[in-house]
Amino acid sequence: MKRIQVGVLGATGTVGQGFVRLLADHPWFEVAAVAASERSAGKSFGEACRWRLSAPLPDRVGRLPILPLDPRAMAGIPLVFSALPADVACRVEPTFVVEGFVVSSNATSFRQQSDVPLVVPEVNPDHLRLIDLQRRTSGRRGFLVTNPNCTTTGIALVLKPLHDAFELNSVVAASMQAVSGAGYPGVASLDILDNVIPWIFGEEEKIETETRLLLGRVDERGKVKAELKVSAHANRVSVLDGHTVCLSLGFRHPCTPRDAIDVLGVFRGASADLDLPSAPERPVLVREEEDRPQPRLDRDAGRGMTVTVGRVRACSVLDLRLALVVHNTVRGAAGGSIENGELLVRGGWLP
Amino acid sequence: MKRIQVGVLGATGTVGQGFVRLLADHPWFEVAAVAASERSAGKSFGEACRWRLSAPLPDRVGRLPILPLDPRAMAGIPLVFSALPADVACRVEPTFVVEGFVVSSNATSFRQQSDVPLVVPEVNPDHLRLIDLQRRTSGRRGFLVTNPNCTTTGIALVLKPLHDAFELNSVVAASMQAVSGAGYPGVASLDILDNVIPWIFGEEEKIETETRLLLGRVDERGKVKAELKVSAHANRVSVLDGHTVCLSLGFRHPCTPRDAIDVLGVFRGASADLDLPSAPERPVLVREEEDRPQPRLDRDAGRGMTVTVGRVRACSVLDLRLALVVHNTVRGAAGGSIENGELLVRGGWLP
Amino acid sequence: MKRIQVGVLGATGTVGQGFVRLLADHPWFEVAAVAASERSAGKSFGEACRWRLSAPLPDRVGRLPILPLDPRAMAGIPLVFSALPADVACRVEPTFVVEGFVVSSNATSFRQQSDVPLVVPEVNPDHLRLIDLQRRTSGRRGFLVTNPNCTTTGIALVLKPLHDAFELNSVVAASMQAVSGAGYPGVASLDILDNVIPWIFGEEEKIETETRLLLGRVDERGKVKAELKVSAHANRVSVLDGHTVCLSLGFRHPCTPRDAIDVLGVFRGASADLDLPSAPERPVLVREEEDRPQPRLDRDAGRGMTVTVGRVRACSVLDLRLALVVHNTVRGAAGGSIENGELLVRGGWLP
Amino acid sequence: MKRIQVGVLGATGTVGQGFVRLLADHPWFEVAAVAASERSAGKSFGEACRWRLSAPLPDRVGRLPILPLDPRAMAGIPLVFSALPADVACRVEPTFVVEGFVVSSNATSFRQQSDVPLVVPEVNPDHLRLIDLQRRTSGRRGFLVTNPNCTTTGIALVLKPLHDAFELNSVVAASMQAVSGAGYPGVASLDILDNVIPWIFGEEEKIETETRLLLGRVDERGKVKAELKVSAHANRVSVLDGHTVCLSLGFRHPCTPRDAIDVLGVFRGASADLDLPSAPERPVLVREEEDRPQPRLDRDAGRGMTVTVGRVRACSVLDLRLALVVHNTVRGAAGGSIENGELLVRGGWLP
Repeated sequence: MKRIQVGVLGATGTVGQGFVRLLADHPWFEVAAVAASERSAGKSFGEACRWRLSAPLPDRVGRLPILPLDPRAMAGIPLVFSALPADVACRVEPTFVVEGFVVSSNATSFRQQSDVPLVVPEVNPDHLRLIDLQRRTSGRRGFLVTNPNCTTTGIALVLKPLHDAFELNSVVAASMQAVSGAGYPGVASLDILDNVIPWIFGEEEKIETETRLLLGRVDERGKVKAELKVSAHANRVSVLDGHTVCLSLGFRHPCTPRDAIDVLGVFRGASADLDLPSAPERPVLVREEEDRPQPRLDRDAGRGMTVTVGRVRACSVLDLRLALVVHNTVRGAAGGSIENGELLVRGGWLP
Repeated sequence: MKRIQVGVLGATGTVGQGFVRLLADHPWFEVAAVAASERSAGKSFGEACRWRLSAPLPDRVGRLPILPLDPRAMAGIPLVFSALPADVACRVEPTFVVEGFVVSSNATSFRQQSDVPLVVPEVNPDHLRLIDLQRRTSGRRGFLVTNPNCTTTGIALVLKPLHDAFELNSVVAASMQAVSGAGYPGVASLDILDNVIPWIFGEEEKIETETRLLLGRVDERGKVKAELKVSAHANRVSVLDGHTVCLSLGFRHPCTPRDAIDVLGVFRGASADLDLPSAPERPVLVREEEDRPQPRLDRDAGRGMTVTVGRVRACSVLDLRLALVVHNTVRGAAGGSIENGELLVRGGWLP
Repeated sequence: MKRIQVGVLGATGTVGQGFVRLLADHPWFEVAAVAASERSAGKSFGEACRWRLSAPLPDRVGRLPILPLDPRAMAGIPLVFSALPADVACRVEPTFVVEGFVVSSNATSFRQQSDVPLVVPEVNPDHLRLIDLQRRTSGRRGFLVTNPNCTTTGIALVLKPLHDAFELNSVVAASMQAVSGAGYPGVASLDILDNVIPWIFGEEEKIETETRLLLGRVDERGKVKAELKVSAHANRVSVLDGHTVCLSLGFRHPCTPRDAIDVLGVFRGASADLDLPSAPERPVLVREEEDRPQPRLDRDAGRGMTVTVGRVRACSVLDLRLALVVHNTVRGAAGGSIENGELLVRGGWLP
Repeated sequence: MKRIQVGVLGATGTVGQGFVRLLADHPWFEVAAVAASERSAGKSFGEACRWRLSAPLPDRVGRLPILPLDPRAMAGIPLVFSALPADVACRVEPTFVVEGFVVSSNATSFRQQSDVPLVVPEVNPDHLRLIDLQRRTSGRRGFLVTNPNCTTTGIALVLKPLHDAFELNSVVAASMQAVSGAGYPGVASLDILDNVIPWIFGEEEKIETETRLLLGRVDERGKVKAELKVSAHANRVSVLDGHTVCLSLGFRHPCTPRDAIDVLGVFRGASADLDLPSAPERPVLVREEEDRPQPRLDRDAGRGMTVTVGRVRACSVLDLRLALVVHNTVRGAAGGSIENGELLVRGGWLP
């Protein structure tokens, strides 16, 4: 199969580098264009980008010229991935949609817009139905699909099967998030060595809103949030990659720890039959050791696309407690967008 | 005032060194005897102890001979502080009680015993009434008083005024605990660098039980737990000193964030009038910056005896959310035991 | 004694905060004015400054208004300490000198200028003689005195007595420097967690040049470098405060490890008789434990003003090896400038 | 080709797990037997071993029974790799040699014995000639080959081409070593968070002696050290994997930085033609960025078998300065032993 040419917007930043790395040997997609802010114009990707990953920069991509963030510069490319920061994304992504591009965006800008799908393939692939609504509204062929915030992605993957089986009504989440989630330079070392920061700008609101959207449904007028309460404590800790989240969960139907483990153990996700290349064998892996999951040992499970769960036990306030680890820059960012792109291909949504 | 001679059991370990440091310039107490396991017998404290603190070892204590863990070796000393590990404490501490010593213990061994006071002076000084029961039961003048687990100490100090004002019914706690809580050598660096461990042996049970005991009452038969549910997630993070705890709280009476801040802001504790030397001016300090408390910046508040609270805000699942930092080796260990010793002096409990 | 009013230039930054903290209870000096860039104009120090230290911001200083970096705004103040970054210092400091101020600067800008003293009081207080030359050249009463780079300060304090006794000819230094040396935000956490950066901009050159200036002499034309070779490897490591330096030293005269320990052990410095308030009892402390000095345990020796030395042993390539720890933000920055200010007072250099 | 059955001694420890991981998909070798101390007897490897790596434990090996450290239990296996601690290795390894096994050992115990090859394939493969001497001395077919200490391995790989070209006479090395070098539990987190330890037991002596042995030669009576002086400063830093070393080098012939870069750039090693499966394409990689090598970014170069060099520049005391990073648990431990095993196969030394 001839590979589909794709573009990456915001390619030189931390998330953008993640896209380039994960797309390096992708069986379906080939990075044909990289775009970034004016500052990098005229340089090659290799020159413009301060490559910060231990995996080497793919030679071919290193030689690509940096294009402006302008849809005319990417004519002929059907699919672009957006690693743009929110303030740029809200301005640039619509210009690509107007010109007929399919945009799979990791940016936060349009996640809450009613007709823009916010999707994790294993959780709510049916939300892609919103594309029709989006096209009707805009009158354009191009459209935008988004993936959730890194922490929410991990939470939603674990909650989905539990919600389907036992109907959630309450979620208390306390996260311990890696510094890579803040980009580069991001968190100052003086702030995080020998320290915890019990606050991350905007993060708790994102977790609370996006979780309810992912577990919710869509109707002809747009997204409908699930009927459940979510309360989050977001903390930054001295970890490079991998967010850890402690969850206390309340359900409408009885759910013992054994029930939860069983349901999580067989979960393969709504997209399991589609054989998406980035989808891991298991979207959720339950470990039974008393001291797992740990970000350093578990973030790379399923090449970073599996969420690892452990410490499943009863909660004396709500019903169930557990801990999870999600790789924030793979499953929670570039990997999530790419798997959404694969879902779009399988669904026949690409021109 | 002539200073009261005190002994320290388990003086060479991490907690023991904490006692020696905090007692170095104590206005009421003077370390007159240090005891440790047989291994150290015959050495001076300075020789036996691998001093791990940046504050220098007090010269006078460094010259004290290491005594055996035997009450006969400490004859004439009215008060001993115990920094013994649980498995040794459960054997050794009763031998001191039998010989008439007052023991203020940081060990976990007898905290749940019905007639042994588990006390934080600002929270439940009235629980010392149990000493009478304990003496009646044992038929001895000597007695044992304990202070709670490090994390529980911080939680109880913050919950006490809120419980008095609004009556707690539910507590969900997620802790991020410093490595010093595990003693030395304790947590291996290979386990905690670039990592989180979502489990600490026995910690969640201690938080859940001891919090209810501290907020509970005592009657003629012993301790009665408070009527509230506590559910804890205990995590170890890459921090040297200072435990951070995220709390979601449910109350029987309405409590807005402003109400909570007001109540915490005026809290001085039940022992405020006693002028205990180790008691801080404020047992709880509320900071209103959005990113505080942080262990590195706030653990030393009130010379490590003040618990710092921040991020007081509503909770969509329960009623209130907040974060706190408590210095685990000061307020949560040696400092707590010492302040209990002071409370005993003020109460006239010492011979 | 009425305290001398002093100003702090660049007071809101990391180094500036260090000055404010160290001057809080200074017996001779009182912070009467704080100046910073235009951005902070019109605010109080407490509002303008994101206070990053665990020691609390002194109330009185918190209420001072932020002044512009203009000598006219500080009229009447005889002495100003400069915590300005180099690019600002090179422009602003001369305007203060022209207006007759005495400036004790931590900035790198004028350290190499021939008629500007580069001084550590215990090492080369006689270099203050250059003030006369500086005044002659400038035709102004005001003058500028500088203290060396943080790493150099620690190295020079240790080398001084050895050089006097055995005459150095070669120094190979490998430093492991704390992140606080880079200011705030400074080193990104993504760069230093689980990592070492074997390079610090400009640092090796500073160590090599400034060490030779401090151990050198002054004549009527200015500074003359000592006749010795210095070669430095500067590394950044995951430490908050305290630079560690490994030294291999070659001498013109025989020097055994015992000789070196003896010489370092009696060193009190050329300024010992002056009783400078910031000067530690011992400028250099030799520890004989095999695993010391360590930055976390030794950086606070002598309230951060003592350099701790250990592992003194023979070198098979040169003559002697040792390791040292210096507190980079105290002895190596604000504390060094303040002690220079004290030296100026004692020398009668202030108006 | 049928794979050669190999055994691993000390398989459950940190280094042993490294062997199991690296041998998991080895094209020539298959782990057929794992042995450990009595404590693990009767268990399977999966049960006995607390697997600490993020790469999963290979299923097949997990099911192998733990054998005693007894050659009779491994009858029929031609080659064993030893990950034993020194005090066990010195007792156990000879019992295997006596029974005719070929032992490729990572232990320190016999590295300095005159007739035991201490080998890095790219550096001194010709030292395998000592096997004949060893056999003559022992009268046994079995023999022992060792690889050097982790830090020395990295140093020797970089020094070899420089020594051949310019003849070294002096080496000053300052290392910043990862905690994984101390095994598990190894370095306490309380010792290394926010800290540096300027000492590692026995390390400096190993670096100094083994470097001279690797760059030396062998004659009919055994190993002859190279004529050069080596002086090492060994430090432990807060890094998980990857040792960083700063080198100052003196040569007998002129060597500019450009000369050194050229020589290092073309170095392929004495074993380049043998196509050893574990040998990287380039044993040494020179990076020209000013801030490399860094352990986190460079330790995995060449699957952990390439040593990365940077900052090649002149030294004002000796002739040349540079920094290197070597993956201590791959190239410096199990990977080194395995590549030695491959060298033995290619040389026809296996039965």
